[in-house]
Amino acid sequence: MQTPTEDNNYHLIYWPGTPGRGEFIRLALEEAGARYRDTAHEEGGLQVVRSHVDKTIMGDWSGPPPYAPPILKHGDLVISQTANILLYLGPRLGLVPTGDAVYHVNALTLTALDGLSDEVHECHHPIAMELYYEDQLEESKRRSKCYLQNRLPKFLSYFERVLKSQKALDRPWLYGMAFTYADLVLFQCIDGVKFAFPQAVGKLEKSAQYVNVFIHYEAVKNRPRIKQYLSSDRRQMYSMDIWRHYPELDNAE
Amino acid sequence: MQTPTEDNNYHLIYWPGTPGRGEFIRLALEEAGARYRDTAHEEGGLQVVRSHVDKTIMGDWSGPPPYAPPILKHGDLVISQTANILLYLGPRLGLVPTGDAVYHVNALTLTALDGLSDEVHECHHPIAMELYYEDQLEESKRRSKCYLQNRLPKFLSYFERVLKSQKALDRPWLYGMAFTYADLVLFQCIDGVKFAFPQAVGKLEKSAQYVNVFIHYEAVKNRPRIKQYLSSDRRQMYSMDIWRHYPELDNAE
Repeated sequence: MQTPTEDNNYHLIYWPGTPGRGEFIRLALEEAGARYRDTAHEEGGLQVVRSHVDKTIMGDWSGPPPYAPPILKHGDLVISQTANILLYLGPRLGLVPTGDAVYHVNALTLTALDGLSDEVHECHHPIAMELYYEDQLEESKRRSKCYLQNRLPKFLSYFERVLKSQKALDRPWLYGMAFTYADLVLFQCIDGVKFAFPQAVGKLEKSAQYVNVFIHYEAVKNRPRIKQYLSSDRRQMYSMDIWRHYPELDNAE
Repeated sequence: MQTPTEDNNYHLIYWPGTPGRGEFIRLALEEAGARYRDTAHEEGGLQVVRSHVDKTIMGDWSGPPPYAPPILKHGDLVISQTANILLYLGPRLGLVPTGDAVYHVNALTLTALDGLSDEVHECHHPIAMELYYEDQLEESKRRSKCYLQNRLPKFLSYFERVLKSQKALDRPWLYGMAFTYADLVLFQCIDGVKFAFPQAVGKLEKSAQYVNVFIHYEAVKNRPRIKQYLSSDRRQMYSMDIWRHYPELDNAE
C-alpha cells in the first residue's frame, strides 16, 4: 500500500448536477483526502465537460480521445471509463494493495458496475438511451420487475458470499485485509439502488439474506472522510442519471 | 513491449459451444502464439466451468470467487471479467506497451465491450436475461431498431475517429504504433455485429463513413496467427450468446 501523495493535480471531468458515474471517482479521491478539481463545482464546468467529448477532437500522440465522462485529467494524461480511472488512481491513492490484488479488486469493481449501476440504468431505459422514459414506460416496468426479482438478488447474493468468506477469515472488506476502491464502488452502488428502489431494497434489507452487504454499506458510510464528504455540499443529490426514483418501478413484491 | 513467454499454464474457463466473451481471451492467446488449455475443447469442460461458478464456492486467502466466465486460471491465480483478464494478459503476451499506455488500451477495450458487445446482447434480451427471446420479441425489435439507428453508428463513429487520427500520424492501429489487445477486441466486436446484423452492417460498410473501422477489421483478420486460428477448429461457430442472428432484428433501414 503506497502512501497517498499531496498531489492536487487531479481534475475530474463529469457532468455537473448529478452524482452519476463521476461519484465513483469522487469517493476514491475523498477517501484518500486527495485535493482535486471537479467540473461539478467549477464555474463553466459544463463547458469543460463538453470540450472533452466534442466529436471534432481527434487523438494525438498522447492517446485517443475519451468516449464519454467520467474523464480524469492528471498532468498530461487524460483517461476515461470509470473502472479504468479507478485502476489508475488505486495505487496512487493507497486504495489497492500491490501485486496481483489489483486483478481481484478490478474484477469486483467491474462486477458491481455491471449489475448495480449499468443494469439499473437499463431499468428506466430498456429500449433506448435517446428516448424519453415516458416513451418506454411499459418496458421499464417489465424490466424493473425482472431486475428486482432476479438480477438484483443475484448480484447481492454474490457480494454477500464474497463478504461472508472474508468475514470467516476475520476481514471486514471485500478484498483481503485492505480497504480498497472496490469497497467504495459497492457502497455507492448500494446507495444508488436504495435511492432508486427504496421499497424493494428495504424489503431485501429486512430479509437478513444480505446482512453482510448492508453491514458493509454502513461501515463504508461511517468512515470518517466519507461521512464528512456525504454531509458536505460536494455530495450532489441524485438526479436524472443512473439511479432514478420512479415509484411505479419500485415493485416491492 | 515484453516478449511473449513459453508459458503454457494458461487455462481459459468458458462455456463450450459458443465463442461468447471467451473469444476476446482466446484471440489474445492465439495472437501471441501462447499455449493454453480451453474448456471449450477439453473433455468434461462444461463441468470445469460449472465447478468454478458454483454458488457454494467461497473465496479464500487467494481471492474472491469469480462471478461469471470467462475465467482465467494461471498458476494459483484465478481471475474473471473480460477486460480484467486482458489487463492481466496484455503485458505477459506482449499485447500492450509499458507505462501509461495500458490506461488508453483498457479504456478502448471497455468502450468496445460496452457498445459492441454488452449492448448487442441487450438487443435480443432487453427485458430480462432469464426470459426467452420469444417472450421479449416486440421489445427486442424496438431496441434493435434504435441500436442500429443510433448506438451502433455512435460507437462506430468513435472508433473511426480514433483510427483516423492514428492514420494521420501514420499508425495503423487503435493505440500508437503498437498492435494491442484493444485491436483484437474491436475486431471481434465488429465480427460479431457483422454476424448479428449482416444487412444493417453491410449497409454501413458500403457507406464509407466508417472506412477505417472496416480496413482495421480486415487487417486484424489477416494477421498470420489470427488467420490461421480463424480457419482452425478452435474457432467455434456463433451460437446462442452475445451475437445472435435473428433476421427480424436486422433492420437495414
